[in-house]
Amino acid sequence: MGKRGWTDEASEILCVGEGFRLSDVDPDGHPGYDGEKNNGEDDLAEGMEALSELQERLYAASRTGTATDSILLVLQAMDTAGKGGIVRHVVGGVDPQGVSLAAFKVPTKEEREHDFLWRIEKHLPDPGFIGVFDRSHYEDVLVGKVRELASADEIERRYGAINEFEAQVAASGTRIIKVMLHISPDEQKERLRERLDRPDKHWKYNPGDVDERMLWDDYMAAYQTVFERTSTEAAPWYAVPANRKWYARLAVYELLLAALEDIDPQWPEADFDVEVEKERLAAS
Amino acid sequence: MGKRGWTDEASEILCVGEGFRLSDVDPDGHPGYDGEKNNGEDDLAEGMEALSELQERLYAASRTGTATDSILLVLQAMDTAGKGGIVRHVVGGVDPQGVSLAAFKVPTKEEREHDFLWRIEKHLPDPGFIGVFDRSHYEDVLVGKVRELASADEIERRYGAINEFEAQVAASGTRIIKVMLHISPDEQKERLRERLDRPDKHWKYNPGDVDERMLWDDYMAAYQTVFERTSTEAAPWYAVPANRKWYARLAVYELLLAALEDIDPQWPEADFDVEVEKERLAAS
Repeated sequence: MGKRGWTDEASEILCVGEGFRLSDVDPDGHPGYDGEKNNGEDDLAEGMEALSELQERLYAASRTGTATDSILLVLQAMDTAGKGGIVRHVVGGVDPQGVSLAAFKVPTKEEREHDFLWRIEKHLPDPGFIGVFDRSHYEDVLVGKVRELASADEIERRYGAINEFEAQVAASGTRIIKVMLHISPDEQKERLRERLDRPDKHWKYNPGDVDERMLWDDYMAAYQTVFERTSTEAAPWYAVPANRKWYARLAVYELLLAALEDIDPQWPEADFDVEVEKERLAAS
Repeated sequence: MGKRGWTDEASEILCVGEGFRLSDVDPDGHPGYDGEKNNGEDDLAEGMEALSELQERLYAASRTGTATDSILLVLQAMDTAGKGGIVRHVVGGVDPQGVSLAAFKVPTKEEREHDFLWRIEKHLPDPGFIGVFDRSHYEDVLVGKVRELASADEIERRYGAINEFEAQVAASGTRIIKVMLHISPDEQKERLRERLDRPDKHWKYNPGDVDERMLWDDYMAAYQTVFERTSTEAAPWYAVPANRKWYARLAVYELLLAALEDIDPQWPEADFDVEVEKERLAAS
């Protein structure tokens, strides 16, 4: 066994590569992880400290003006798949001062008057930050395609525009992690039912969720195309089975951890004379 | 004893009212709380769930478009007093999706070309959100006054402008909680020394911190004036002893909790027919 319950690196086993078929992914699975819910929850809780320290190092560089790296976590999924839980339980474990979170809703009139990447660019993380996109520019080739909100030519153009955009963002020092949380239609039905059964969950329910649900196969086909066209070395996609919330959270944690370990941020060196400052402080 | 270790309401005992003198506040104290560090830490950990649930209710209304209330926590302090720790350990305990955090640094050229409230307004929390200001418009009557960055007349004008601004913000549904974390010069010296002693803390040290430290009494006088001129019913100041980090965190937690309890947010009612939706879902 590798680190804790992992038998494989999440960043390898979940990565969307050549020949990937979404329909081959079991939403109930926990690939690469040899453990059950209680192990997964323990591993996540214990692992948070390591993530938190790496994140603090990353953020520290932003404070001294020496940061060059950042992370962008893109979350896409069908409704109820658990994007909110990832934000709450994984991203929420690190210092909020170093996180910038953007939730992309249905575009406003102003946003629709610009290219679809216009609103996205404004929310890219600054150096030293972990940016999180709750939905993203991928909506424009998912709902955009399924609902025919744009012409086929325009959708086609967007895949290329996305790859170009993401390549630039990656070249500027941002590690891009694109996650699709993959649930089954049955699991979604169960989760939507719970939202309807519990008055304290009604606010999470939207009648439109069922409309989208009826187009499940179309959405899965649109995701498959997104994977084929936009999973690049600079900005890979990860398909994360999400029927088990504990697994999805642990897997996204691992992806974030791997990106931070890859950056390997160091505590910034003092840009002042430490001994001189000790004397000034002592005299003050 | 009232709730847990509190003998008085933090929102009462820490509130800056008529005749308040900052010099009477003991930075080592833990007013209103009858307990030690371990009790305080336990109470904070145990209390987080209540804060988190109230915050979720507040945020829920933002999702259904029915939110009218928000909270704005303003944090001011001398360097090392623990603003970052409040953000990390108190604000960090609630869902990041419902928090908007703004750190105000030295104003940029563009910001200096506008009125001092221009950059502040843009970061006010949306309904349903908890906004946190790490420093704020008060810098313009603190460092602005001590360093004579503006004329005495302009500083004078700003107190009135602040009161008017905050009254409007409060009238629009925002509970404003203004916190000054109060440490002693000795405690600051200790904390700055630690930052100099530890290479992993160098990034938190700035030679300018000692420059400001040399003007300690001027800053305390400027805070005293701020309290006298801007602690209003609509936007009260709280002077929080902060030599003991555990107390400052617990106290700010209590202030946030009291504001949320005062708002008493309710789960939004469904704006759809629950039974119809159950049928649609079942058929889908």
